[in-house]
This record gives sequence, C-alpha cells and structure tokens, in this order.
Amino acid sequence: MNAALPRTLVGLLTLWSLSPISVFAAPRAQRRPKTAVQEIRAVLDRQVDAWNRHDLEGFMEYYWKSEDLTFFSVGTRRSGWQETIAGYKTRYQSEGREMGHLDFSDIQIEPLGPRAAYVRGHWHLDFSSGKAGGLFTLIFRKLPQGWRIVHDHTSNE
Amino acid sequence: MNAALPRTLVGLLTLWSLSPISVFAAPRAQRRPKTAVQEIRAVLDRQVDAWNRHDLEGFMEYYWKSEDLTFFSVGTRRSGWQETIAGYKTRYQSEGREMGHLDFSDIQIEPLGPRAAYVRGHWHLDFSSGKAGGLFTLIFRKLPQGWRIVHDHTSNE
Repeated sequence: MNAALPRTLVGLLTLWSLSPISVFAAPRAQRRPKTAVQEIRAVLDRQVDAWNRHDLEGFMEYYWKSEDLTFFSVGTRRSGWQETIAGYKTRYQSEGREMGHLDFSDIQIEPLGPRAAYVRGHWHLDFSSGKAGGLFTLIFRKLPQGWRIVHDHTSNE
Repeated sequence: MNAALPRTLVGLLTLWSLSPISVFAAPRAQRRPKTAVQEIRAVLDRQVDAWNRHDLEGFMEYYWKSEDLTFFSVGTRRSGWQETIAGYKTRYQSEGREMGHLDFSDIQIEPLGPRAAYVRGHWHLDFSSGKAGGLFTLIFRKLPQGWRIVHDHTSNE
C-alpha cells in the first residue's frame, strides 16, 4: 500500500471491501470464461449424469453428429453417429442388457491448441450382475455447438 | 493448348520439357515444405521400416522421450518412454517371442491445429506362428525435434 495514500481513501477502500457491493463483486470476478479443460470436464460430467439416468440420447449429445465420427471399441470400428448410438443400444439397451452405473476416474484433459484436446481416463460400469471397465482416449474438437467428441477409442480391462 | 500460341514457342516449350533443366526443375518444384499429413505419414513409414528390421530403438525414436508419454494397450496403462520400451521388449524381444512383420492399413491422419494431429489405423503383425492385429489411435505433437507420438491407444482384434 502506498504510504502517501490519503487515510480517507484507505478508509473508503476498507469499507468497500466489507460492503455488500464486494460480496456481489466476488462472484462476478469468478465469472471469467471457463478454460477448455473446465468446459470439457463439464461435458464429461454431463455425459456421466445422462448415462446414470439411462438417457442414452443425452449421453450421445456430446458426440459429433457426423458420418465422420469414429468409435473404436473392443476391436470394432464404428463410423458415424447413427452407427455409434445403434452400437450402444445393442450393447446396453437390448433384451437382457442394462446400462448400469457409470463412473470415470484418472481423467487427464490435454489441450492441443485452442479448439482441440485429447482426454485419457478409466471407465467403470457397475451392473446388477457384476462390473466392467477399461481405458479410453477421446479426441475433442470445439465446434460451433460446443466441445464434441470426434473420435473415441475405448478398451476393456 | 492455346491454338494461337506461336509454333516457335510450342517448339521451345517442348524442347524445354525434354531438357536437362526440366529434369532438375521437377524435383525442385516438389521441394516445397511438406504438409503435416505428409510429415506424419513419413514418421509412420519410418516406424514400420524400423520394426521390420527388428530395430525397436528406431521404432521408439518417434515416441516422445518423456515421463508424460502414455501408452494404453490391452487394458494396461504404461507411463513414460522407458516403461513403454520395456513393455515392447518383454512382449516382442524376450525368450520365445518375435517381432514379426508389421504393416499398417486404413491410416487416417487428421491435423488438430498447426502442431497437433491424431491418427487412426489398423495394425497387422505376421509371426512365424500366426497373426495379430487391431486398431490404434495416436496423438502426435510437433516438438522441436519433429512430430512425436505423445499418446498411443492400441487394441487387439
């Protein structure tokens, strides 16, 4: 603090810092634009929430709705959003199947420039009959509609 | 060809196209800077060549020499260049193992900005005792030493 600052001004600043204005100012200061990492983390959280309310469309909302989306899983290559959701439906919503409870861990989100990132992590599914899990790699791109997965490589433990 | 072009000029152009100058000019024209896709394709080709002369160090040259390199394979997460090459040595160079003959197919190289890209493809290994293969996803970054794999997710068929 500048020693030459008039005492009256110091008093005013002290009062301001305790005033209701500063209480409102603090959250406003936190309202700075989210980083890519925060935005992608929020997408992953929304995907987990959608899966756990068994809303497959909500989960798939964050995959690129394009024929160029690719999904590598258990040695199988799927191309396009429609083929990907069809694969999920067969695997998790057909007769005798269940979606279970999804959880991610060890998430590492690495930006690759202002509009791209890759994400590494573990996935875990709890079913009434047991567990499944493995590793995944996601490529995210920032599209006009927000961050979307353009490629998913998922493998089982 | 423009019909109004003077015959003399046509003759000169024909002569030029057959002259030693054009023989030298052609490679010079191709010496424009390679695109990211061409550079990464060349790295993959060099990796395949190294593998097929059973030069594991040469193959590993194009992986980021960092503790932050990650390698996801068959449900196992390896961290760092040393752990990754150790894994390859155990899998392909230990007693009773062989490196076989490597081939890639269906390579798709997608830039994600000027200094990053992801690569999707199939890998195939022919051994004296049989075959193996599967899908891979690579994350490349352009480092001062050139394009390097910073993350590899490989799965078996």
